[in-house]
Amino acid sequence: MTDTSDTHTLVSVPGGVTAAAGFLASGIPAGLKPAGALDIALVVADGPPVPAAAVFTTNSVAAAPVLVSRRHIASGFARAVVINAGNANACTGAQGVVDAEQTARVLADVLGAEPGDMIVSSTGVIGVPLPVEMLVAALPRAAESLSAGGGDRAAHAIMTTDTVAKQHAVRIQLAGRTVTVGGMAKGSGMIKPNMATMLSVITTDAPLTSAACDAALRTAVDTTFNCVTVDSDTSTNDMVVLLASGAAGGAAIGPQSPEFAAVASAVHEVAGVLAIMVARDGEGATKLVTVTVNGASTDADARLAAFAVADSPLVKTAIFGRDANWGRVAMALGKCGCAIDADAFDITFAGVEVCRGGAGLTFDEELALSALSADEVAVDIDLHLGAGRARVWTCDLTYDYVRINGEYRS
Amino acid sequence: MTDTSDTHTLVSVPGGVTAAAGFLASGIPAGLKPAGALDIALVVADGPPVPAAAVFTTNSVAAAPVLVSRRHIASGFARAVVINAGNANACTGAQGVVDAEQTARVLADVLGAEPGDMIVSSTGVIGVPLPVEMLVAALPRAAESLSAGGGDRAAHAIMTTDTVAKQHAVRIQLAGRTVTVGGMAKGSGMIKPNMATMLSVITTDAPLTSAACDAALRTAVDTTFNCVTVDSDTSTNDMVVLLASGAAGGAAIGPQSPEFAAVASAVHEVAGVLAIMVARDGEGATKLVTVTVNGASTDADARLAAFAVADSPLVKTAIFGRDANWGRVAMALGKCGCAIDADAFDITFAGVEVCRGGAGLTFDEELALSALSADEVAVDIDLHLGAGRARVWTCDLTYDYVRINGEYRS
Repeated sequence: MTDTSDTHTLVSVPGGVTAAAGFLASGIPAGLKPAGALDIALVVADGPPVPAAAVFTTNSVAAAPVLVSRRHIASGFARAVVINAGNANACTGAQGVVDAEQTARVLADVLGAEPGDMIVSSTGVIGVPLPVEMLVAALPRAAESLSAGGGDRAAHAIMTTDTVAKQHAVRIQLAGRTVTVGGMAKGSGMIKPNMATMLSVITTDAPLTSAACDAALRTAVDTTFNCVTVDSDTSTNDMVVLLASGAAGGAAIGPQSPEFAAVASAVHEVAGVLAIMVARDGEGATKLVTVTVNGASTDADARLAAFAVADSPLVKTAIFGRDANWGRVAMALGKCGCAIDADAFDITFAGVEVCRGGAGLTFDEELALSALSADEVAVDIDLHLGAGRARVWTCDLTYDYVRINGEYRS
Repeated sequence: MTDTSDTHTLVSVPGGVTAAAGFLASGIPAGLKPAGALDIALVVADGPPVPAAAVFTTNSVAAAPVLVSRRHIASGFARAVVINAGNANACTGAQGVVDAEQTARVLADVLGAEPGDMIVSSTGVIGVPLPVEMLVAALPRAAESLSAGGGDRAAHAIMTTDTVAKQHAVRIQLAGRTVTVGGMAKGSGMIKPNMATMLSVITTDAPLTSAACDAALRTAVDTTFNCVTVDSDTSTNDMVVLLASGAAGGAAIGPQSPEFAAVASAVHEVAGVLAIMVARDGEGATKLVTVTVNGASTDADARLAAFAVADSPLVKTAIFGRDANWGRVAMALGKCGCAIDADAFDITFAGVEVCRGGAGLTFDEELALSALSADEVAVDIDLHLGAGRARVWTCDLTYDYVRINGEYRS
C-alpha cells in the first residue's frame, strides 16, 4: 500500500497556480483598475485542452461570465481561464453575455484554441457594462506574458479589496511520481459562498479524468470554500475551477482509481488553505474566527448553527471588541432553527469555558481578554444531542468593514 | 355603517402606554442600571385582571421570563406587566425561572393579585444571574409610584441602548364612544423579531375579549414588529403584550364583532409606529431604510427578498456611505432563494431608477447622492413575477454599530 502511506506527506511548495507542471500564467494591467494595477489574469494549460471541472455561485442573479463558463465547462475539458478584476460583468443584460463570449473568442484566437475551451470570469463592480474592447485588446499581451513562474502575478491581478494575494501549493509522492496541486483565490467581501464558492483556480499535474476533477473539486469545496463567510452575502460571480494537466505522468486517475484519494486530499488541502486565507483577509478583519459545532443532531444542523454564529453581527463585533460576550453566541444558536436543548449546550469562547448546560459560568475576564487579543479566535460549541459537527471560518466585524463598504463602489 | 366610517379617523394622542383609560404605570430606579437610571417599569390594569394576549420570541434559547410569562398568559387574562432592564435573565438555568417566578409572586403580593396574572419580562445582558433581591425589594416602590400619567417614565425605564423612548397612542370614535390604544416599546440591537417581536406593551380601553386581543395582536405584529430588522439577530427576550381594560365601556368586542376591525386597525397603527421607531433607532443608525418588494411570486417570497436586502451588510454600509450601489441589492435578491427572473427585475434606489430588466441604467449620481443624504431612504424592487409584496424596515450599518457592540456587553 505504497500509495496510501505516500498520502501522509503533503509538502508545501511555492508557485501557486503554476506550481503544477503543464501550466503557464500571467497577470497584466489592462486599464480596468486605476493606476496601472494588474487586472487581467490568465492561466493556460500548455498544450491541448485538459480535464477540468468547476463549481459556480448559487446566486440566481448570476454574472454573464458565469452563464458562459457553465456552458463551456460542460464538456469536462478546458484550455485556459481568463479573469478580469475591476468589473463583475453582472446585471449587464444580454450585452454582458455577448461581451463574455467575445472575450472567449478573442482569447481562443490568440491561443490557437476553441472558444468553448475558454473559461471566463470577472470580479468587481456589479451593473456597469464591461469595457470589453479594453479587455480584449490586452489579451495578446497577456498571452505573450505567460510563463511557468507567472502564478504570483496572476494571483495579484485578481485581487479587489483583498489585502494579500492568496496562493498555496502542495506536493505529494504518488506511486513513485511527484504530483503537485496548487491554486490561487481572491475574495474579501460579499463572501458567503455556501454551496458554491468565490473566485479560485486550482491546477494539478496529476492525470485526473474529468470525472475525477469534478469529484475532487466538489468534495473539497464542500468543507472549505463553502464553510467560509465574511458578511453572509453571496457574490454573483463566485467560481472555482480545477484543471488537471497530467504532466506528472502515469495512467489516468478516475474517481475509482486507488490513487484518487491522495490527489483529492491534496486538492482539499489547497482549497482549505485558500479558503482560510479568504476568511482571514475578510474586509476590515483583525481576526480569523473559527466556529466549531459538535454534538448536533445532524451535520446539517451543525452547519446551520455554525453559520448562525459566524454570520451574527453581534458575535462578530463582540470579538472585534475582545469581549467574551458569549450570550450572543447562545442567542445565535437559539435563533437558527437547529435542534437544541436550551439546558444542555456548552460554549467555550477563545479557549475559556463560559457556558455549561445552557447557563453561564463564572470565568476569568482577564484571561478571556488576553485570549481574545490574539489574531485567531476559536468559538467552540457542544450541543450534546448527537454526532453532527461542522466547522466554519469567518472574521470579526470592524470599523474598517464599514469604511471599506461605505466608501468603495465594489 | 357609522362604525366603519369612524375607523377612518385615527387621532394621535399623548400618554403612551397609559393613554387608554384603566391603566396605571410607573418607572423607577432599582439599581440594575448604573447611575440611578430608571430600570423597572410597571404597567397595571386598575382593577381585576383584564383580557390580554402576548406573542413571544421564536428563539429556542428563550429567557426565563419568557418561559414563565408564556404560562401566565395562557389564561387569556393579565393584571400587570413588570419589565426590568439591565439584565435579560436568559441562559440563567433553573435559577432564572425561580427568580422570574419569585418576581411574579412578590409583585402579586404587593398588588393584592394572583401570581398567574403577572407578566414578567427582562432585557439586558444575557447569561448573568438576575439580581432578584434588588428587583423584588423595589417592587413596593414601583407600585406606590403607579399613576395614570406614568407611561412616559415606564417607556424610559425599559430602554437599554435605545437613544429615544418609544411611545405612541391613537384615539378612535367607535359607536359614539372614545376608544384609545397606546403602547411603548424598546429595542435597538439584536433586532430581527421575525415571527415574534421585541419588548412592547400595548394597552387599550376597548372592551376586547381575550380572543379579540389575540387576533388583533397577531395580525398587527405580522406586518409591523415582524417586519423590522436591525442586525438579523433575534433576541432571547422578545415579547409584546396587549391588555384591554374595557374602561371605554360598551359591550364586549370579540373577533367577529362589527367593532373589531376598527380597534384592530388602531392596534395595528400603534404597533406599526412603534416598530418603525425601533428600526429608526437601530444601534448606530443614521437612516431609516424602507425596503419594499412588489411583483414577487408570493407574499412569502417578497418577504424573503425584502429581508435579504434589509439584512445585507453590504447594502446597509452602502446606504451609510450614501452610495447608490444597487448591484448589492441585486446580489441580495439573487442569493435569497426567492423566485426571480434575472432579466426582469427593477430597482429604484432612494427614488432614483437604477436598474430595469435586471440591467443597470445610466443615472444621475449627484441626484442619488442628494437623495441618499436624507434621513429616510427607500429601496423599491419590482420582480415582475406575480402579486406578492412585502415591506420591511431597517437602518444603515455604521461605525457606531461596531462601536456600541464592540464596547458594551449588552
